Amino acid sequence: MTSKKQTLKIAAEPTDQKRAATKTAAARKAANYVYVLGVDKADDIGDLKPLFGRQGASLADMALVGLPVPPGFTITTEACAYYHAHRGSCPTVLESQINAGLANMEKIMGRKFGDAKGFPLLVAVRSSARVPMPGMMDTILNLGLNDDTVQALAAATKNERFAWDCYRRFIQIYGDVVMGVEKRDGEDHEPFETVIEQFKNEHHDRGIFDSELTAADNQELVKRFKDLVRQFTGKPFPTDPWEQLMGAVGAAFRLWMNERAIAYRHKHNISDEWGTAVSVQAMVYGNTGETSGSGVAFTRNPFDGANEFHGEFLTNAQGEEVFFGVRTPEPINSLKQRMPKPFAELLKVRQTLEKHFRNMQDIEFTIQDGKVFLLQTRNGKRSATAALRISMDMVKEKLIDWETAVLRVPADQLDQLLSPIIETKKARGLAKGVPASPGAASGKIYLNIDRAVAAAENGEKVLFVCKEVSCNDLCGVDAAAGILTTRGGIASIAALMARRLGKACVCGASTMAIDYDKRTVTLSGETFKEGDFLSIDGTSGIVYAGNLVAPSEVVTGLLHGDKAAQKTEKCKNFLQLMQWCAKATRMQVRTNADDPEQTANAMAFGATGIGLARTDHMFFEGARVDLMREMILATNEAGRRKALAKLLPYQRADFVGIFKTLNGLPIVVRLFDPPLHEFMPHTNEQIRDLSKKLGIKVEAIQQRVAQLHEFNPMLGHRGCRLGIVYPEITEMQTRAIFEAAADVSKLKIKVQPQVMIPMVGFKKEFDLQAAIVHRVAREVMAEKKIKITYHVGVLIEVPRSALTADEIAQTADFFSFGTNDLTQTTLGISRDDMGSFLTPYTDNEIFRANPFASLDTTGVGQLMEIAVAKVRRTRPGIKLGICGEHGGDPDSVKFCHKLGLDYVSCSPYRVPIARLAAAQAAIEDKRRSQGLSLAPPGSQASRIM
Amino acid sequence: MTSKKQTLKIAAEPTDQKRAATKTAAARKAANYVYVLGVDKADDIGDLKPLFGRQGASLADMALVGLPVPPGFTITTEACAYYHAHRGSCPTVLESQINAGLANMEKIMGRKFGDAKGFPLLVAVRSSARVPMPGMMDTILNLGLNDDTVQALAAATKNERFAWDCYRRFIQIYGDVVMGVEKRDGEDHEPFETVIEQFKNEHHDRGIFDSELTAADNQELVKRFKDLVRQFTGKPFPTDPWEQLMGAVGAAFRLWMNERAIAYRHKHNISDEWGTAVSVQAMVYGNTGETSGSGVAFTRNPFDGANEFHGEFLTNAQGEEVFFGVRTPEPINSLKQRMPKPFAELLKVRQTLEKHFRNMQDIEFTIQDGKVFLLQTRNGKRSATAALRISMDMVKEKLIDWETAVLRVPADQLDQLLSPIIETKKARGLAKGVPASPGAASGKIYLNIDRAVAAAENGEKVLFVCKEVSCNDLCGVDAAAGILTTRGGIASIAALMARRLGKACVCGASTMAIDYDKRTVTLSGETFKEGDFLSIDGTSGIVYAGNLVAPSEVVTGLLHGDKAAQKTEKCKNFLQLMQWCAKATRMQVRTNADDPEQTANAMAFGATGIGLARTDHMFFEGARVDLMREMILATNEAGRRKALAKLLPYQRADFVGIFKTLNGLPIVVRLFDPPLHEFMPHTNEQIRDLSKKLGIKVEAIQQRVAQLHEFNPMLGHRGCRLGIVYPEITEMQTRAIFEAAADVSKLKIKVQPQVMIPMVGFKKEFDLQAAIVHRVAREVMAEKKIKITYHVGVLIEVPRSALTADEIAQTADFFSFGTNDLTQTTLGISRDDMGSFLTPYTDNEIFRANPFASLDTTGVGQLMEIAVAKVRRTRPGIKLGICGEHGGDPDSVKFCHKLGLDYVSCSPYRVPIARLAAAQAAIEDKRRSQGLSLAPPGSQASRIM
Repeated sequence: MTSKKQTLKIAAEPTDQKRAATKTAAARKAANYVYVLGVDKADDIGDLKPLFGRQGASLADMALVGLPVPPGFTITTEACAYYHAHRGSCPTVLESQINAGLANMEKIMGRKFGDAKGFPLLVAVRSSARVPMPGMMDTILNLGLNDDTVQALAAATKNERFAWDCYRRFIQIYGDVVMGVEKRDGEDHEPFETVIEQFKNEHHDRGIFDSELTAADNQELVKRFKDLVRQFTGKPFPTDPWEQLMGAVGAAFRLWMNERAIAYRHKHNISDEWGTAVSVQAMVYGNTGETSGSGVAFTRNPFDGANEFHGEFLTNAQGEEVFFGVRTPEPINSLKQRMPKPFAELLKVRQTLEKHFRNMQDIEFTIQDGKVFLLQTRNGKRSATAALRISMDMVKEKLIDWETAVLRVPADQLDQLLSPIIETKKARGLAKGVPASPGAASGKIYLNIDRAVAAAENGEKVLFVCKEVSCNDLCGVDAAAGILTTRGGIASIAALMARRLGKACVCGASTMAIDYDKRTVTLSGETFKEGDFLSIDGTSGIVYAGNLVAPSEVVTGLLHGDKAAQKTEKCKNFLQLMQWCAKATRMQVRTNADDPEQTANAMAFGATGIGLARTDHMFFEGARVDLMREMILATNEAGRRKALAKLLPYQRADFVGIFKTLNGLPIVVRLFDPPLHEFMPHTNEQIRDLSKKLGIKVEAIQQRVAQLHEFNPMLGHRGCRLGIVYPEITEMQTRAIFEAAADVSKLKIKVQPQVMIPMVGFKKEFDLQAAIVHRVAREVMAEKKIKITYHVGVLIEVPRSALTADEIAQTADFFSFGTNDLTQTTLGISRDDMGSFLTPYTDNEIFRANPFASLDTTGVGQLMEIAVAKVRRTRPGIKLGICGEHGGDPDSVKFCHKLGLDYVSCSPYRVPIARLAAAQAAIEDKRRSQGLSLAPPGSQASRIM
Repeated sequence: MTSKKQTLKIAAEPTDQKRAATKTAAARKAANYVYVLGVDKADDIGDLKPLFGRQGASLADMALVGLPVPPGFTITTEACAYYHAHRGSCPTVLESQINAGLANMEKIMGRKFGDAKGFPLLVAVRSSARVPMPGMMDTILNLGLNDDTVQALAAATKNERFAWDCYRRFIQIYGDVVMGVEKRDGEDHEPFETVIEQFKNEHHDRGIFDSELTAADNQELVKRFKDLVRQFTGKPFPTDPWEQLMGAVGAAFRLWMNERAIAYRHKHNISDEWGTAVSVQAMVYGNTGETSGSGVAFTRNPFDGANEFHGEFLTNAQGEEVFFGVRTPEPINSLKQRMPKPFAELLKVRQTLEKHFRNMQDIEFTIQDGKVFLLQTRNGKRSATAALRISMDMVKEKLIDWETAVLRVPADQLDQLLSPIIETKKARGLAKGVPASPGAASGKIYLNIDRAVAAAENGEKVLFVCKEVSCNDLCGVDAAAGILTTRGGIASIAALMARRLGKACVCGASTMAIDYDKRTVTLSGETFKEGDFLSIDGTSGIVYAGNLVAPSEVVTGLLHGDKAAQKTEKCKNFLQLMQWCAKATRMQVRTNADDPEQTANAMAFGATGIGLARTDHMFFEGARVDLMREMILATNEAGRRKALAKLLPYQRADFVGIFKTLNGLPIVVRLFDPPLHEFMPHTNEQIRDLSKKLGIKVEAIQQRVAQLHEFNPMLGHRGCRLGIVYPEITEMQTRAIFEAAADVSKLKIKVQPQVMIPMVGFKKEFDLQAAIVHRVAREVMAEKKIKITYHVGVLIEVPRSALTADEIAQTADFFSFGTNDLTQTTLGISRDDMGSFLTPYTDNEIFRANPFASLDTTGVGQLMEIAVAKVRRTRPGIKLGICGEHGGDPDSVKFCHKLGLDYVSCSPYRVPIARLAAAQAAIEDKRRSQGLSLAPPGSQASRIM
């Protein structure tokens, strides 16, 4: 490793003409190594990154737009190149250019660098390369502190502990990064940490934690740290701020050639010649008095998407305090009265940000002595409802086009729009807190996490109520439908957890009184015991009495035809989104549905047909299951046919209902699939009952049940294996389908049956079953004197059928991937049995995601690719779909689009999600093919300080 | 379809010069359309097939070699081409050339074509194309019969029924094939069959079967058939033999252009110009008196391979009678006295055949009035013992080279050499029958198939004894270890069935008396009741009293070190074969073995290491299973480690034993695989016992058993999934392996452990387990102060690991295909549960073979190909093997060779089979690459009559 102990040399040589010639025009124009934020005309340069690095470019960009970033300057990558070309010397002009940059900062901040009397100007120094890479310099904050300036800082902030803490941390990082006081080979601990440990051990009786170090503790540590530096390096810690600064700049240049950075660049094919820039920026403080403070804000409401400024603020505080959640922050709008000028400036910032980034931004800011500084901006996280509304509004505001709007709505969260809401008509609001995580939740209240978990395990709907969520509660929060706290804001742990888990949350309902002894909660004078119902609206922050959850307006509007709901903005936005999806998409979305109601719901959500109708689910109901049992217990074909003949009318009626509902849309009917034992009774009592009903001896039933037992039913006698052993089942089902199709066709309703053979592994299996389907279809069409266009296809759910898809395609009319079973067989994992190792597998990152929720594209997806390629080679135009549960998972849907499938099929409520994902995939495809960026402009996060 | 009703026109035109110019030199030399067998110099022509077709070429070939085929001639493909080029006319010269051919036949046979006074010359007419194809002319036998000659045939054979039967069949086939009296579209039955049905209905009271038609019946049918022909075609059935002959030749030419034949040729890219030849041959009859007869023979003994003429013969009989088995034939050697001259001729035929075909031949022959005619010759079926001995002898006789010898031994039957034999030292021979199917069998005798099946189901070893096997018995024969009959020979149903099923069989033990009422068998005056033991030697034909089965000489010689056995020819031949295998093979053969004895046996058979040692099998034994249960019932890691520590010494000792036995050969140790519930007790009593033993509450055990229950254990918590959840199991096993390896290494015995991680689907799974193995291996080597070279590899048994083999190969040292589980997962079929559909699947030919016995190369094999390609791309030199049961199946072994695997591993007794298959695969590869034929010369069957 290169030594870090050099300080910065300034060379006498002029710029190396040859090297400079290969650089940007701007660099050639003059030997300008320093660009001052918002002063130098960085916009002349074009792409700023090669010269400024990513961080520096982003800062320059924001300064150019007029955002109030803390003043500063950037030392260009040219300087770094010069440094390495001249054995660690810097160009002569650099010193004066840096001095000019500092002078500008001092002017804007009204402070002096190294001033030990007034409030000293302190700076942050960062390495800024085009691409972040390991081994480069860590950010150094509060540079400029020494034994004198620290006193000045303490006086200015009236906070001695804060000042010495800053100083102690500064020495630690500077000592490590710039001066090389770091762990040596074979040592266990960092030297500075060892000093702290030692100090803590000495004060063992006080039980010191890091954050509890007093001003005096830090002062003592500063002393020991400086001793350590001198011991370690043989040099004193630099007290001159200028020396500190030049040391940091040199370290940043040096570390560009650090071993890890070089290895990383070689691996990623990045030229060593790029070099790193260094950005130097003034430190700002929100804890200098009542005209200072820190806050976080969203440029629009992240819960419902309303076009309003939304955030919170703590007076006389640094940013960290907003997150610790010990003091409940005030709403951002309270600044309007308190600090009207800074508030007006924030509103301007808000406008500038949205215009520049064309997206809702999440910002951190500090107000120092009435002056606003923007510390960070990034695309704001938002609920699906908000994402939808913001996208729609931004299209209207002409900030984005409709395709970008579609890309901006998170498909995996779209079900939030269909999630229940509070039935506000009947509602009685009791309190208002901070709306911390969107959605509605009703539940029996519990004040203790263990009792909450126990109640949830008992099947109760639970609302967890507490003063503030502690770390101990975290593991149980998942059991609750929602969280309600008296303290904390949108940045509190409770709010973060709830948003991550997709639970409703209201924080800081400060008028709520909790009595942990009596286990009661009092709201607006009304007292609720544990077990009583409360409801919360995580979007409005209102707490209600009772169990008030009701279907979403989108559901009542689209599925129940509620006119009022249809007129809500949510519903209208949803419909607009779906309309755009239809415009963008290539891939169809069908639904998995077994009855008319599911079918109608899916169609209301835009499904273009049924991709999977399971004919066997129908057999578990009512009288039918006994007929099934009669068939299973029959000792010969005649007996089975007799029972099947009685099942036929039921099955036909089912199909009539679905066909009518579909009103002309296609339907894939999967023939009988489950192993027969699933239909049989298992307890002795049930067997006795059945024996009486059917007049079959108990022993005979027991024997048949025993005979049907399988070691691995998933891999047993099911799917087409049943139809091959008992062709009469296939015959009956085909007859039911085609008789129903004929009857419905005669009502002038088109029927497009697509009969699907399950669990096929061998072409011959398909052919044998398809022959029965074709024969019975011909028979029925002849009997009914009608022609029905139909197809016979195959369900790919074992690897062998994927691998031999070219053979099967010779005779099959369509293919559908049954990715549930295909995942089970490809991974050799039974979904029902994976509970015993799922957690260790997730913890060890063996699965990137549960492969039954999101398609394992590497394994299962590879088989699908093989199958698709083989099928298309045999029959290019053949229809391909997917009907596993992955059909409703956005990532899987996008993978299916990439594979070129014709449709995905999913459960009715996931149809909108699949439609959105399919549309996004198509738009991404289009943009990719046009060489456009997929991410909307300015979507990148910018950490300023 | 072209009409068949034309007769043959003879054209006046000369040979079309232009066409002929493109044909063979021989054809250009003269307009010679007819070659007389053994007279014309067909050997001038070179490859005979283009001109003579396959059948004609084979006949000409045999005649040239001097084999006594019935006289005849071949009309060349040139004539057929001429016929089609001249609108169905034949060249003028054809007539006289055919006449000359007939004259030659008349001369040799001493008969006249159409002679109604003496024995008439009758002929067989066949189509002979280069490649057989559908739609061509069926063979017409007994051409030349009419109302006059039939009488002469009856007189000559003194068998009126025979003569009229021949005549009736001749009209039927000639009427159909030549005259087009055949089923028309929409009709259900063939016209001739309808006439027979009608006739049978009229004689319903007599209950007539086809073979029971009397002379009078046939005479009546001849009349009705001729009426049918006239009705159908408007023409009489031709009575002139010449007209019959020319009609048949024309039909053969015409049918070359039949739709099915054309379609077939287009599909297989065969030129229409090839044309068909027609072969005309004299009919011969074995039923003309006491100097006539028919027989079958092998040029060597097909049971033990002895170089002796072996066969049987029936005097005054046609060939069919030898097969019906009603009269028991005499041994062929009895001809030596009875018909010395024909016998001498047969011996000459035997010699000529072996010299020509360089293989043991199975022939059919007829002696007509003292003259021998060869009707068929083909490579003779033989037992593995015989195949081995014949191959060895033929190498010595310089008939074949050693590579051919290796190819000639059927790998799938090599286990016959290891099968038990009769312990003749103690044996008491009671009778001698025909040795009809090789091998030894002892069993309790049963005279009724139902009782035999019932006894076998009770676990008894059964010998089925009967007068002759009837069709009703067939379904039960499989249950018996052997079959013993009083009637029939090597061509009887009993013998055929036994050979097909690989059972020992002695037929025609005519001195044995069966009393079905008393259920006894009497042999040499001694009476045996049902349930008494008899033994049979299917190779010698001897029947013995008692239970005498003993291990094969190969087993006692190689495994038990018996010197006498080692000196037997069988044992020496076996060793010679294995030596040649070692010389030829590329692929190694290892064994699946879990203990020193299995290991030693496999090594004696030539295994070069262990390809699969299952560490978990060891845990089911004795005290260990309780320790396993203690581990499983432990409630925490400490408890599990405690139980594992007690298991460690057992496991280490097991490995020490195996490592010592291996004496330096490599061993693949598969880590723990089965689901834990397999080790747990299930009945209440067993649970109570365990509760007492371990001092754990019954309820706790029951709860754990319930917890371990899985729906699909094959896809559940097993394999490396256990090692990931319980790393301490992997640690203990690794420690046992390396401690044992260290201890054995110190005895100066090399140990090459290859640790295999089972059930891997994700690279990360392998990496996590491999990290434990490497760590513990390092620890043990440090403790024991020794270095052991080892590898860590992966068992590929789920499709995902095959599909991602390139990723896994980045860190794994070797791969082994666990094709048992890989077949289960790829096909989605549980081996334990396929019983309920296996039969319908085999009947419907969905499986070509049971995929768990012989590798499904299309599906599972494709995955293996993908994996091999991917692995080799990542790490070209990595070792690849297979350790599923397919490793002992010859076809699968050959597939593995083709895939380029480094080794196969199989159970010890299948090691020789795998070695032979591997050697054959290598030789076949070599021959293929040298463009040599794989089949040894003359291996093709030749049906002469």
